[in-house]
Amino acid sequence: MKLTRGGDQPVDAEANKALRRSMKQMVNKRDPLVIFMPSGKRGSFPVGTKILDCARKLGVDLDSVCGGRGICSKCQITPSYGKFSKHGVTVAQDSLSEWNSVEQRYKDKRGLKTGRRLGCQASLITDAVIDVPAESQVHKQVVRKRVEVRDITLNPSTKLYYVEVQEPDMHEPTGDLERLIHALKRDWKLPDLIADLNLLKTIQKTLRKDEWKVTCAVHLGNESFSPRILKIWPGLYEGSIYGLAIDLGSTTIAAHLCDLQTGEVVGSSGIMNPQIRFGEDLMSRVSYSMMNENGAEEMTAIVRQGLNSLFKEIAHEANISSDVIVDAVFVCNPVMHHLLLGIDPYELGQAPFALASSSSKYFKASELELSLNPSAQIYILPCIAGHVGADSAAVALSEEPHKSDELMLVVDVGTNAEILLGNKERVLACSSPTGPAFEGAQISSGQRAAPGAIERVTINPQTKEPKFKVIGSDLWSDDPKFKESIKSSGVTGICGSGIIEMVAEMRLSGILDSSGLIGSSEQTGSDRCFLDGRTNSYLVWDESTSNGSKITVTNKDIREIQMAKAALYSGARLLMDKFNVDNVEKIVLAGAFGAHISPKHAMILGMIPDCKLDKISSAGNAAGTGARIALLDTKSRKIIEEVVKNINKIETALEPKFQEHFVNASNIPNSSEPFPILKSLFELPTVNFNQKQTGDTVGRRRRR
Amino acid sequence: MKLTRGGDQPVDAEANKALRRSMKQMVNKRDPLVIFMPSGKRGSFPVGTKILDCARKLGVDLDSVCGGRGICSKCQITPSYGKFSKHGVTVAQDSLSEWNSVEQRYKDKRGLKTGRRLGCQASLITDAVIDVPAESQVHKQVVRKRVEVRDITLNPSTKLYYVEVQEPDMHEPTGDLERLIHALKRDWKLPDLIADLNLLKTIQKTLRKDEWKVTCAVHLGNESFSPRILKIWPGLYEGSIYGLAIDLGSTTIAAHLCDLQTGEVVGSSGIMNPQIRFGEDLMSRVSYSMMNENGAEEMTAIVRQGLNSLFKEIAHEANISSDVIVDAVFVCNPVMHHLLLGIDPYELGQAPFALASSSSKYFKASELELSLNPSAQIYILPCIAGHVGADSAAVALSEEPHKSDELMLVVDVGTNAEILLGNKERVLACSSPTGPAFEGAQISSGQRAAPGAIERVTINPQTKEPKFKVIGSDLWSDDPKFKESIKSSGVTGICGSGIIEMVAEMRLSGILDSSGLIGSSEQTGSDRCFLDGRTNSYLVWDESTSNGSKITVTNKDIREIQMAKAALYSGARLLMDKFNVDNVEKIVLAGAFGAHISPKHAMILGMIPDCKLDKISSAGNAAGTGARIALLDTKSRKIIEEVVKNINKIETALEPKFQEHFVNASNIPNSSEPFPILKSLFELPTVNFNQKQTGDTVGRRRRR
Repeated sequence: MKLTRGGDQPVDAEANKALRRSMKQMVNKRDPLVIFMPSGKRGSFPVGTKILDCARKLGVDLDSVCGGRGICSKCQITPSYGKFSKHGVTVAQDSLSEWNSVEQRYKDKRGLKTGRRLGCQASLITDAVIDVPAESQVHKQVVRKRVEVRDITLNPSTKLYYVEVQEPDMHEPTGDLERLIHALKRDWKLPDLIADLNLLKTIQKTLRKDEWKVTCAVHLGNESFSPRILKIWPGLYEGSIYGLAIDLGSTTIAAHLCDLQTGEVVGSSGIMNPQIRFGEDLMSRVSYSMMNENGAEEMTAIVRQGLNSLFKEIAHEANISSDVIVDAVFVCNPVMHHLLLGIDPYELGQAPFALASSSSKYFKASELELSLNPSAQIYILPCIAGHVGADSAAVALSEEPHKSDELMLVVDVGTNAEILLGNKERVLACSSPTGPAFEGAQISSGQRAAPGAIERVTINPQTKEPKFKVIGSDLWSDDPKFKESIKSSGVTGICGSGIIEMVAEMRLSGILDSSGLIGSSEQTGSDRCFLDGRTNSYLVWDESTSNGSKITVTNKDIREIQMAKAALYSGARLLMDKFNVDNVEKIVLAGAFGAHISPKHAMILGMIPDCKLDKISSAGNAAGTGARIALLDTKSRKIIEEVVKNINKIETALEPKFQEHFVNASNIPNSSEPFPILKSLFELPTVNFNQKQTGDTVGRRRRR
Repeated sequence: MKLTRGGDQPVDAEANKALRRSMKQMVNKRDPLVIFMPSGKRGSFPVGTKILDCARKLGVDLDSVCGGRGICSKCQITPSYGKFSKHGVTVAQDSLSEWNSVEQRYKDKRGLKTGRRLGCQASLITDAVIDVPAESQVHKQVVRKRVEVRDITLNPSTKLYYVEVQEPDMHEPTGDLERLIHALKRDWKLPDLIADLNLLKTIQKTLRKDEWKVTCAVHLGNESFSPRILKIWPGLYEGSIYGLAIDLGSTTIAAHLCDLQTGEVVGSSGIMNPQIRFGEDLMSRVSYSMMNENGAEEMTAIVRQGLNSLFKEIAHEANISSDVIVDAVFVCNPVMHHLLLGIDPYELGQAPFALASSSSKYFKASELELSLNPSAQIYILPCIAGHVGADSAAVALSEEPHKSDELMLVVDVGTNAEILLGNKERVLACSSPTGPAFEGAQISSGQRAAPGAIERVTINPQTKEPKFKVIGSDLWSDDPKFKESIKSSGVTGICGSGIIEMVAEMRLSGILDSSGLIGSSEQTGSDRCFLDGRTNSYLVWDESTSNGSKITVTNKDIREIQMAKAALYSGARLLMDKFNVDNVEKIVLAGAFGAHISPKHAMILGMIPDCKLDKISSAGNAAGTGARIALLDTKSRKIIEEVVKNINKIETALEPKFQEHFVNASNIPNSSEPFPILKSLFELPTVNFNQKQTGDTVGRRRRR
């Protein structure tokens, strides 16, 4: 008899043997031992104890929604057999009770993997070793894509519980809710729960729909939200419950829908922040609220509308009702933080940039007028300071500089660069006004990352001829099939990561000197360089004769990039001063745009300080990842709240050295500058295109 | 120098003496002793310790809003002088530091009673005895009007705290809220507070209005509401904060506005429940919700509108903004409970009358769409059972049968009578369907209590002539000036308490026999009795010839009262069976209408069981009083929640004896019935007007 294969042929001899063995154990007065893997937790229990009960008593992480009624299948286990010398036990094939009809029914109806049993049906006969597969663990590990980071431990705010509730009668006059709470307490050892109004309105009908059997989504509570029942379904609810991780940026809003039972991302979507109509950058939005009576309210209303349309779309795509979205985490910069909450960002527009509130926040979805389950509790990560927001906190949660042995620089590149530098000892943070050049704005041929945008560039140092790739095609521009491959979009412009590569390649190929001047055709020996007003420009692509685009890099574009990279570098440099170092051991480039930056080109450009090239990586949307961690692992919320308290904010505006660093950083590195690692890796041309320049000196930019 | 009288003439000799004495104590190494009265708390403190600080360290109940800055005057104290042999101290006139300029300024500006000092200014020099006047105590006693009941101890949910907040700067990037919370923690030892969205929206402006000085209304929290700041004012807020005690009845809604700092009722108002348009009694409203798709929602909306207009009126009359109403307590029957919360009362209309929820509830005012401070936390008392609501719980809180040595019957008379019977050992409860007769409905000349309604009656046993008083006049109807005194209203009908006296007086005067028949003019010898259809009626008042009213009592009216009183009596009787008694030791008649019932007439009518007449009292609106206790003394909330759990609900519909008691109770007492106390007090006529009767037998009424 193979218990693990469905076991539909009971063999009496085998059963008798098992019985004899268990009787022998009883005579020996030793209860059988059960060892759970991978935890290694072990204990002895009387013959006949359900494996699920053993697991609960030992604190083994074995899931169950139905509480052992054999209907939810969450408690699947895999018994192991053989000799386990490490544990000192030998496990017989019949260490567990026989495969039973409940398991067979479940297998017939839903399927059950070979070797699996239901922990609530199989009971202990003799010594057993039980493997708890990952999907049966409540606190399972959610795998992150990047190899260098830890996985997320699932600790959701809200879980599902199935209960059978006592019917009311006239001798027992407690309310329906109280009997439901009692059942949850009795079966699941849950604390005294409460319920919001919206639940109270539906509880009576739902309880009566399937004979007083219901599944409850229970929020387990935290410091500002008492444990409560968020939603109930008649009978066993076989769907799941979901949470949203939302990165609310000034320009884009991205949301990931996560299954709170598995931790998986089941849907992602993004929209442009509809507040853009009130100003592209944050300061314009703060100004809008200063200049208009109800400006802040208007912007709050419109961003909430935008969020709701995004939520609707994402729920529709995942084919779920928005009512089963029971949790959400927001990360955002301080201005978006205030505008989401309906707080006038007035004070964030002037020194000392005081936040109305910096700590993390919990609100009900209904309070923020968000179309999720109305009792869904929204968590907003803490802000670090007036210019370093919950998005930076999320980056810290994702990248964990506070746990790093190496001195680690984390740069979240956007309209403002949020910069973290630190290690186990301490972490510093600052914000630097890079401006929108890295996002393709204020660049003559700049554009957002979209099909047709140049994103990869190399320039031949001899011929000065460029080749590039555009978003939407895998081919380089010198490929004969390139034009065919981009027929639908054409070449439309240069996106943020493309412009960085472009400028760095121009520098490497000697088209650009260290001061940021483009050489003339005579100086560079290339016709692609041409006089364009008082300075030179570099021609990248020209299809203008056939009604296509003409893409050039002007010296003004170079100046914009120089200013942006100088702002970023000088912010990092300021923090490095506090650590008294000239280079860092590790760099993580974060931000939606950071995902695409080529570390090599960023380094050639002098955007980032000296660091070994293989120690520079892109984290992608680390803020979004931080939001997802906070969503799935509620224990991480307290952790980041503590971490944020210990991050030391450096205000660039108060540091005289910042301006000095900024001026020094405006040049593109040359061999006389302090970048030993960079210089050891690349040969930096020593060209100098000095000529009379007017009106394009690099100056201090206002904060955006 | 009289320190206690303003002390504007410092006398050096006295001061020197005090100094010498204190120096002597210092040499003796004995710190001066301070004894606070009335608590008797005592302790020694170094010379110069502020009396407020001594009080705080000893846990003496001495109020302060400004935290010792000499601006709020809440910490007023009265030093005592002389020999206190009981305490073993002699207190010199200069036991405290000299009257100072802060006290003088306060006295000049606002006045200070003779003998009073400010506890935050006066400091300890030598042994002192300090009297804390009632108004300086936080937990002061609020005096209840009735002598037989305990006063209310003030323990409000929300208190005022003045703080000076650290200004933000760029080196200290915490939010404004966090610095405010820090100040409250530092100065007032308050826990970690949170703030709702509406506070976050105003905090930045308010903090900057008066140089970072603010007064905060802080809700101290409870099991489902974390401690939080509800409202802030710039500088020292000299107004008060308020709470509402609301008795939400089927017919009327009454609200009392209470000052949470003094416990005083500063305004009261009432309106008709606007749901009356959906049905006079509760069952009609339940039916309305069953018959109409959005019936329950409609009724919820309209009662909330009604409440909001009542709140507006009451705030307007008290000349306060509704935003300073930061707490509210509701008591109501189960159907009103559900309709207030927006829960369909469907299940309350059919056995087993299951409540959606029976336990006490907390909601924010904004959740219930009530126009108070949006963060005001609404408390709703627990329901005892499907027919015994939060109003009965409030009656229990006010009348405390669970603390009584004597067996105590509490009857809350309304459309349903809520009945409590018990003592220290146990308390039973039931609800009995009395119908609306006691409220003047279904009585031919019945009306609500309003000017012109007959409320007091006596009938001369010899002449059978009635005399009465109407609401709005102090004169009896046989007074020559009576007609003049009621000119504006006339005599318009008989109110609930009037009809009880009327029927009891008719019985006492021999117009009515024990079976409830009115005698004919021949049988009674009075022309006021006349044949009216198949039965007789009694003429009370006839001004019809001069265009006035004609008021009669018909035999059908008597039947209505008999049924109502039988329902009430049999409910009480059912509970008495459980205690195995035939009479009770104490009766309290509660309910808005209960306040006016004459205990004597109620007893003659057989409404209530046998009890010594001087042990029967009227409690007035005991449910409203219970609401006020729960509002002012938050500690009473936990107490009543526990008491309610231990009240044993008896369901009349399940008790076969109820019907039997009801039939037996329909007669009006005669000398053969078991009312020994009643019969010892009054001579019950033995008349018998038996005649062929049709169509007016007393039957079982449906529950209303």
